[in-house]
Amino acid sequence: MRCEIISVGTELLMGQITNTNARNLAQELSSLGVGVYFQTVVGDNPQRLEEVFTQALQRTELVILCGGLGPTEDDLTRETVAQALELPLEKNKDWEKKLEHFFQKRQRTMAPINRRQAMVPSGGELLPNDRGTAPGIFLPLENKVVVLLPGPPAEAMPIFRNQVIPRLKEKLQNIGELGILHSKILRVVGMGESSLVSKIGDILQNQSNPTIAPLAKEAEVHLRITALATSVQEAKQLTENTASQIKAILGNAVYGEDDENLELAVAKKLWAQQKTLALAESCTGGYLSHRLTNIAHSSLYFHTGLITYSNQAKIELLGVDSVLIEQHGAVSEEVASEMAHCARKKGEAHLGMGVTGIAGPTGGTPEKPVGLTYIALATPERTICHRYDLWGNREQIKLRASQAALHILWSHLLPL
Amino acid sequence: MRCEIISVGTELLMGQITNTNARNLAQELSSLGVGVYFQTVVGDNPQRLEEVFTQALQRTELVILCGGLGPTEDDLTRETVAQALELPLEKNKDWEKKLEHFFQKRQRTMAPINRRQAMVPSGGELLPNDRGTAPGIFLPLENKVVVLLPGPPAEAMPIFRNQVIPRLKEKLQNIGELGILHSKILRVVGMGESSLVSKIGDILQNQSNPTIAPLAKEAEVHLRITALATSVQEAKQLTENTASQIKAILGNAVYGEDDENLELAVAKKLWAQQKTLALAESCTGGYLSHRLTNIAHSSLYFHTGLITYSNQAKIELLGVDSVLIEQHGAVSEEVASEMAHCARKKGEAHLGMGVTGIAGPTGGTPEKPVGLTYIALATPERTICHRYDLWGNREQIKLRASQAALHILWSHLLPL
Repeated sequence: MRCEIISVGTELLMGQITNTNARNLAQELSSLGVGVYFQTVVGDNPQRLEEVFTQALQRTELVILCGGLGPTEDDLTRETVAQALELPLEKNKDWEKKLEHFFQKRQRTMAPINRRQAMVPSGGELLPNDRGTAPGIFLPLENKVVVLLPGPPAEAMPIFRNQVIPRLKEKLQNIGELGILHSKILRVVGMGESSLVSKIGDILQNQSNPTIAPLAKEAEVHLRITALATSVQEAKQLTENTASQIKAILGNAVYGEDDENLELAVAKKLWAQQKTLALAESCTGGYLSHRLTNIAHSSLYFHTGLITYSNQAKIELLGVDSVLIEQHGAVSEEVASEMAHCARKKGEAHLGMGVTGIAGPTGGTPEKPVGLTYIALATPERTICHRYDLWGNREQIKLRASQAALHILWSHLLPL
Repeated sequence: MRCEIISVGTELLMGQITNTNARNLAQELSSLGVGVYFQTVVGDNPQRLEEVFTQALQRTELVILCGGLGPTEDDLTRETVAQALELPLEKNKDWEKKLEHFFQKRQRTMAPINRRQAMVPSGGELLPNDRGTAPGIFLPLENKVVVLLPGPPAEAMPIFRNQVIPRLKEKLQNIGELGILHSKILRVVGMGESSLVSKIGDILQNQSNPTIAPLAKEAEVHLRITALATSVQEAKQLTENTASQIKAILGNAVYGEDDENLELAVAKKLWAQQKTLALAESCTGGYLSHRLTNIAHSSLYFHTGLITYSNQAKIELLGVDSVLIEQHGAVSEEVASEMAHCARKKGEAHLGMGVTGIAGPTGGTPEKPVGLTYIALATPERTICHRYDLWGNREQIKLRASQAALHILWSHLLPL
């Protein structure tokens, strides 16, 4: 079953609000095996709405309209759909009573225009809305389905989940199209999208079910593996098989799955190995500590972070030798290593990290350009340091430096 | 000029990501007087993309396509548009060199497939992308304009703002359709949306031109004032008049305008007063330092941040009296004040701040529930401390605590 989602509202077209309904509906539909082929946004204009709706009905079997069911004069979805389908509107007496009750309770008079919200195209089923006055409508046609939902997400989504999905499932079951779609995301760090794609080129070339979609994120890449099957077990099995093949090729570049971000992956390793960590941050300015303390129970591994932005702070608070800074500059392998070492000592932690770089936009020189960053990790045995040439604006450089630091930590914490 | 925005990407269709580009583009276009008539989302399918594109070109004069310019095989927007318009693709040698340089710098080999990103439909103009390898394309046709933008918002929006808008303005000017819409945002802190709305109720009731739209953000509220006029000067004048009226009512609750966030407002005051700041963070875990160091040239006021997550770190690194912690607990007015005082001393700064609280989800008690936060500011004259009962998840509590801390700083730095 192919689907088109039509969102109705001039405020969407003008960019005053974000179209979260389309996203949320698409997610739910995908997991039923319904393919969303088009999403369209159109304003509160009956002629254009009718054109868009008629086209959707030609090119898909399921048309979901969101918005334009309100009580005001520019809310015209109900009437436009009825007209396009040449169906009369019939009054739902129960909902009309509900509306009357609603207004009585608020001691307001119900305007005649409000009664429109009790009208349903002939053959349609009214879907009660317990958060507002605009009900949804489920309208099965000969071999198509039309669904109308109110615009506010807090009203649309409960109606969709509780009332539309069960009806859709029955339809899909009847036509033998109830698919079970299962997805898994593999999260990859330390590798760009194009080198990742070339590494797993063979698998990508031959994909059909599961499908594999690479998605470039800030400083990492996600691979979404999606399988369609007739049972949950089979769908999961298909996904897992492909995930295993990919992981065999990418190895430890795959640091996590689904919602597990890099800070959580690192946190899990620190918890398992009962290790603590102390940080000395310069260019990241607290962002690395922030990410590591976003994890609930981070206090088990994180006790101390020192943000030593100035040379003076590096020397006095952290204990970096001033000679090192004089000789090599604050942004150098030597100072990063010493920062890691001192953080470890000051914080009385198993591991210490030092991050120093030039976040920009100023402060760069030909020898040490904006983006140059040194990140060091001090362990009981040794201190290692990596150099990075990061790019982007100030916030992106902070983000990428923190990502690189977490990647170093992650790699260090891998079992040997 | 009528416009259709086409977003290309199966991940959008399946609801894996939200279509923020469509919203942001629509906002910018509206402010130029361009009417967005349709927004469409279509997957990485060349046939359906061509259909959607051809239709858009029939029903509007400006077609903006977003996404599908990446280096992988399912990125087909460039080729599909060229084919639909029957235009040959021509290589842009400068961008090809840029791509080669990009890969050389990263010591990676450039795959032949990457060279596609240097191809431009004949007659089109390549719009350089300084944050990625996919450039935008501006393609004027006889009486239409086609624009191609990369999918990632951090790449699409700067190209649109800096390179597409000036070209569009010229076009609109030539055809006499350039409307002058001018907006100003007033940023309000320390006041909820509903109390804000009731304070300026009279102005809101009587608005027509400019219009005033309140928008609740995380821990602050924005008021967007938008005026329509025939000249820039007139539009600005209208906006300024309303802004002044509102500021007269709200006073210092309006901390900034437009893109000036609270950290920048604070930074400006610190610069002007030549003051430095040292932080001692517990529950915010570095987030406050991160926000204050997101500002370019933050090193002028920020030298030191201490993230003292554990009691031991508070005592040993910061110098908080252990008796205070025993008597009052780490989350208390006394400890917050002492943290601020110690941060000021340790950091040798004019101002010191201490933040201690319970970010959750665990660690709360009936007496000290999750969200309880104390924030103190130490100045040469005195130390003040405020108590907050914040709500939300862990990251929201960190955000709200950092916002409250910046608000305290902002209020302190106001001229008496």
